[in-house]
Formats: sequence, structure tokens, C-alpha cells
Amino acid sequence: MEKVQPKTLPGFMELLPEEQIVFNQMKETIQKTYEKYGFLPIDTPVIEASEVLLAKAGGETEKQIYNFKKGENDLTLRFDLTVPLAKYVAEHYNQLTFPFKRYQIGKVYRGERPQRGRYREFYQCDIDVIGDGELSLFFDAEMPMVIYNTFKALGLDEFCIFINNRKILEGLFKSINAENQKIEIMRIIDKLEKIGEENTRKELKTLGLNNESINTIINFININGNPLEILEKLENIGIDNPEFNLGKEELKKVIQFLKAFGISDKYFAIDLKIARGLDYYTGTVYETFIDGHRDMGSICSGGRYNNLSDFYTDKKMPGVGISIGLSRLYFVLNELNLIKVENKSISKVIVIPMTENFSYSIKVANILRENGINTELYCENKKIKAKFKYADKLKVPYAIIIGEDEIKTEKLAFKNMETGEQDSFTIDEILTLLKN
Amino acid sequence: MEKVQPKTLPGFMELLPEEQIVFNQMKETIQKTYEKYGFLPIDTPVIEASEVLLAKAGGETEKQIYNFKKGENDLTLRFDLTVPLAKYVAEHYNQLTFPFKRYQIGKVYRGERPQRGRYREFYQCDIDVIGDGELSLFFDAEMPMVIYNTFKALGLDEFCIFINNRKILEGLFKSINAENQKIEIMRIIDKLEKIGEENTRKELKTLGLNNESINTIINFININGNPLEILEKLENIGIDNPEFNLGKEELKKVIQFLKAFGISDKYFAIDLKIARGLDYYTGTVYETFIDGHRDMGSICSGGRYNNLSDFYTDKKMPGVGISIGLSRLYFVLNELNLIKVENKSISKVIVIPMTENFSYSIKVANILRENGINTELYCENKKIKAKFKYADKLKVPYAIIIGEDEIKTEKLAFKNMETGEQDSFTIDEILTLLKN
Repeated sequence: MEKVQPKTLPGFMELLPEEQIVFNQMKETIQKTYEKYGFLPIDTPVIEASEVLLAKAGGETEKQIYNFKKGENDLTLRFDLTVPLAKYVAEHYNQLTFPFKRYQIGKVYRGERPQRGRYREFYQCDIDVIGDGELSLFFDAEMPMVIYNTFKALGLDEFCIFINNRKILEGLFKSINAENQKIEIMRIIDKLEKIGEENTRKELKTLGLNNESINTIINFININGNPLEILEKLENIGIDNPEFNLGKEELKKVIQFLKAFGISDKYFAIDLKIARGLDYYTGTVYETFIDGHRDMGSICSGGRYNNLSDFYTDKKMPGVGISIGLSRLYFVLNELNLIKVENKSISKVIVIPMTENFSYSIKVANILRENGINTELYCENKKIKAKFKYADKLKVPYAIIIGEDEIKTEKLAFKNMETGEQDSFTIDEILTLLKN
Repeated sequence: MEKVQPKTLPGFMELLPEEQIVFNQMKETIQKTYEKYGFLPIDTPVIEASEVLLAKAGGETEKQIYNFKKGENDLTLRFDLTVPLAKYVAEHYNQLTFPFKRYQIGKVYRGERPQRGRYREFYQCDIDVIGDGELSLFFDAEMPMVIYNTFKALGLDEFCIFINNRKILEGLFKSINAENQKIEIMRIIDKLEKIGEENTRKELKTLGLNNESINTIINFININGNPLEILEKLENIGIDNPEFNLGKEELKKVIQFLKAFGISDKYFAIDLKIARGLDYYTGTVYETFIDGHRDMGSICSGGRYNNLSDFYTDKKMPGVGISIGLSRLYFVLNELNLIKVENKSISKVIVIPMTENFSYSIKVANILRENGINTELYCENKKIKAKFKYADKLKVPYAIIIGEDEIKTEKLAFKNMETGEQDSFTIDEILTLLKN
């Protein structure tokens, strides 16, 4: 028979079991942390009607989507979890309780050019809080708290959450009458560290900005310090624009809430340059970087938006949310050797019968499983060496070996697979040992 | 602005959060049970190259698939988790440890005509054990044990796993030289209970079978009793065909292993009529029905196959596996009111500040979360009534109300939201109460 080559498509992550165990532990940790903050699960379809999913899309997004026809239907694979949320909230509005705190963890699809660490199918882990008409700024502080706790729970300590407020940037541009050039200005100031202040001034000048405006911009982006210092400097910078002032007040409140949460300055900072795209977000914005690896990109981003579902409903629904791209995070942490995992084995113990009759071994495995211990029972007809090789390869931490003697005496040979230590115990003693 | 109607496609399950909580608990219970038996997780892409995914497909399957082009690539959404497993094992053969026990839980896609309880996107929860060249019959008994424990863990008690061996049926048909008519014969004997023995004989006669062959078939399908009785009757039925005998021996061994596992006869039975399609399976086959609801269809099926990956590799890889269609199972158990769930709330407690300063409430929420308790912190600026309504709607079991007095005395108002009982406790006392 002619064979088909068994190949996975480029840009699609497919892990070996020992890697998958780690990946799943990370996914579960994220889920558990989201739930610790009371976020509710939803699960929307991967396939939606194109008119629904692409109501808001355009430009870059449209190019990357997986779009196809099935019969009469024009269908699209979801490319994020935000548009499905907007649909979900508008569709089920009457059955939801607001503020609606939801999490969703699932695969999304973007037909990007495959590159190392960029996937066409990847997991997003999102939380959002949606208000009905209004939404307290408190949630703008809860988001970084969840990010903080999530990364801590993942065993990560080398990260910092950078916070800004879009109104501050918008207000700054308005105050110097440079609203129409904001994209170009953002692009220039983003390079400041690379090209230096002198060149930045020169480039800003080419946009037709006068010296006073350029001074305002340079003064603004030179603001630094810890969050309270930055807030104070913003008070005294001499920009007087209502949007700027509102953004400043919002940022101050978010920082106050964060202080009340007790999060250390090591893990969060204000970065006045963060904008996160130019349409969607309207207030607080977040980006998270691994210390010393800003070049790897943000590992968790998000922000506040005025109106989640405006393409579907007239109801005003402000929200704030963040997203972790788990597939990419897994790749990045792997690259940086920052993955901390308790165990890479699903089973805690493997039961190896040395007799032909497995009954006693089955009984032992039953008892272990009833006590909540993941247990492998190896009943292939192989030599003892092959049996241990199997246990070694799967990194099972303990083995119980059961021969005629063990069945007679009810004392089982219990082996620590890592140290090689072996001793005899009753099943009850083993249960006690395994539970500690 | 013109609005797009926010609609989910027909045939796609989308649950409300309180339903999703239940669904997810079921999914997690299935996963934990699979892991208890040492199955390893894998996660293959939803999208695969059509030539890979459709190497083996044809007929009905091809009609139902979601197939499309993206650039030059002909792509297909997976329609089960077995073909991706066949690809995975062939592709990663050198890096896997055999027998390879894997589970996969994920969405699959079939463009069926939508009907109540039939979904175009649905979760499958699969386990399979794949051998390298050979595979012990022990695993044919482990499968029903995992099914049994999974349904028990889901709180279900009203089910029975029906077991058969395809070789018995094949041998039966060979022994009466009716191999070419097996599909028609199977169709006729499947109706026995409906049409009665007399009509069954008549219909079999139309196929050109002689009386002796018809007697053999009728004797065979009239075999009943508990597993040991059926095995004994099979010994004495007078069919002598090597395949029949081999199937009988295999079934006997599987039943012996099941007895060793200690599973009660209430939960498993031999059903000699079960065939599970006519190509794929080559030995043991399983179907699981809810007591008194065979009409709802099998809620967990599977079997033994000789060669998982023969479309991709020359290596012989026998396997045995089962699959739970979770979306359908959820639908069926809901219909029959058989879903037992511990709690329908993500949060165990909601902290409600009555003061404008949330600092103390944040501190309390922090402590609860640090102690592993899912905690909602309600910081919207609403009237007390609205706050409790929110907690009620989300079915949060406990509330902690924090006003000026509570902050001063450090005694918090702790309310059981179900009984309405309320009393004052320190945070340590509350932790103790919540942990019990």
C-alpha cells in the first residue's frame, strides 16, 4: 500500500507527551488563577459566521483569517477571543449578570507567515470584565493583580507589568494640536532609546512640529521613576487638556488600588509610551515583559475599552481585559529556560507484576487509584529490564514490584526510581509515603 | 451605525456560564480519571493537511468534513481524534514509549445536518493504548475499567458497558459460509426484538441461507445470561471455526481480567450482537448505554484494531481505545436529569465592601485567595441590594460584608447565602469554616 507522509502543518504546535504535560500544567495554573478571582468560564465555537466575526475587522486581520464556504455558509475561524466575547455578551445579554467577569481559554487561528515562536494555531487565555453601562476603575487594577498572581503561580519571578492610560497620550497630542500626527509621533518616540534625543528632535521637526511642542513631547517621554514619582511629575509638566487630566486621574486611582493590593514595585511600573494599537483601547493599557527581554515582546497585554459590542448592539458595554498568548509564552519561557514544573510524569507510581497472574497487582493498582494516586499498571509480557526502562522513560517517580514473595507476605517492594532506593512496605505504608 | 445580528451558527453548542461550569467539571473529571490510569496527554492541531487527514477516509466521512483552501494548501478540520493519533504515532514514532497510552480531549468537526443533541462542533475525550508490534489483551479489560470509573466519577450509576469480540461474529459468518452477507444478516438480527423470531427466520431465508445456517444464527443470538454463562454457552454451541474460537478465547480473557478488577456484573455484560461498524475494529468492541435508554445511543464506544497507522507506515501498531462524545453526553444526561454537580459557582465567597475605601476588603480577598479559596470582590458602586442580587444570581455560597464596624473590630459579617444565616467571625475563623 502506498503511504502518505504523516506530517503536521508548519506553524502548528504539536508537542511530545512530556512537553504536553508541562504545557497543560501551565494552562491549568492560568485557569485556576483566573477562577481564584471569580472569573466565569465560557466556550464559544471555533467556527462562526463570517459576517458576525468580521463585523469589526479589516486590514491586517482580514488578510490573516481562515475563511471558507461550507454549502451556502460563509464561515471564519476565530482569530481572537474578544470578538466572540462581544458576540456572546450581545447575544446572551438578558441571561448574564453584570459586571460580567468571564475567562476563556482556547485556540485561535491566524494565517501568519510561520516564524520561530509564531503559530498559526495558538492558545489564548483571556479574562475580561464587562459592565452594563458603566464599570468601576477598580477592575483596571484587578487585571494587573491577576497577571501578577498568574505569573507567580507559574513560578516566574522575572517580569514587570507596564501600565499606561491612553487618555494621557491622546490628551498630550491634543494639547499640542498634533492629533493627526499621533501615529507618526508614536513611531518616532518609540525609537528614542535607539536613536537618542537629538535625532528624535530632528525627526519630530520633519513632521512640522514647533519647538515648544517638541519640548513638551521630549519632557513627557523623559518622565521616569517609580509610579508615585511619575504621577507627581505628570502633575507638574504643564499640560492642560481635559482628556490628559482625566487619564492622569484614572491612572492615579489604578495605582492606588494596586498599592492597596500590596503588589511590590518590582512587578509593576508606569510606562507612558505604551499605546497598544490606536483604535480599540480608550483608557488603561497593559504590557508585560520578562526582565531584560523586552525584545521577546509582551507576554500579557490588554486594556480598557469603552464599548465592547457596538457592532452588535446599541447598549453601552465598557470593559477591561487582558490576554496571555499561551503557545507563545510556552515558547518564550522555554527559550529562556524559565519553566518551572513540579513533575513531568502523569503517573506517580507504576505497578510491575512479576507473576503471570495479575490479580494481586490489579488489586494494588485499584487501591492506589481509589486513593487518588495516578497509577500505571504494566501488564505487557516483557522482561524485567524492559519494564523498568518503560518506567524510566516516562519518569514515573516510584515503582511497586510484585512477585510471588510480595503476594505471600503482603509486603511490597517499593522503589524510588530517582535514587534507586528500594524497601518493603505494606500497601497502607506506601499510601502514607505517597501522600506526603 | 448599522448592527450585525450577534448569532451563533446552528449545530454549535454555546452554553451560559452556569452551564459551562457544569460542562467543564465533567470534562475535568474525565481528564482526571484518564490520568489516574496513567494516560498521557497529547494535543494535535484542529487543522491538518487534507491528504494526511483524509488518507483513510471516504464515503460518509468525506461528505461531512470541513475542507477548504488557504493559499496553496488544501486543509481539513479534524473529524475525530483517531486519525490525528495515527498521524502522531507514525510521525513521532522514534520519540514515543510503547505501549503508548495517550488521552486527547478536544473539539472535532462534522458538518452533519443539525438535530437536537447532534453537534457540528463537539468535544471528544479519547483514550487509546498503542503497541509496537503487539499489545497485551490486558488493555482490552483496562478500557471498560476506565469507562466504569469515569462514569462513576461523574456521579452516574445507571449505565452498563456491553462487550463483544468482532472475531466471534466474523467466525460465525465464516462457519456458515455467509461472509459476503454479513452486513445484511447483521441488519436483520438487529431487529430481532422488534420483529420476533419467526419474522427474523423469514428474512434470513430471503438471503438464501439454509435452515441449518439459520438455526445456527438464531441459536447464537439467543444466547444470554451473565458473562460467565454466555462464555459457557459459546463453548457448547457447536460452531467450529478458528476465528470464532480465537474471539471466544480473547473475550474469556478480557472477562477474567475484568473480574480481577472487581467490577460488578451490574456495570458490564456481553452483548454478542455488537459489531461497531464493519471495517475498523478487529477484536474486542464496546458500547455503553444508560439503563433503560438504549435508544439514546451509546455514550462511550470503542474497540481493538490491528493496525492504527497503516496509511502512514509499515510498522504494525495494534491498539485499543474508547471515546466519549462529551457534548452529546452532556446533552443526554441533561435530558435525563442525571447530572450531579457539586457546585455551580466558581467563587466560594464574595467580599462586599460597604465603605468607600476598599483597602480592607482587598486585604481580606487577598488572604482568602492566598489560601486557595476562589473569591469574588465586588467593588462596583451599587446599592447593597444590588450587591446581594449579584451574589445570588451567581449562586456564590458565602458572603463577607465589610463595613466600618468590621474594619474596626476585625470581626467580619459572614453570611451563608443559601440559609441566610449570618454571624461575626475573624478572618482566621472564616478560613477554617470555608476549608471544611
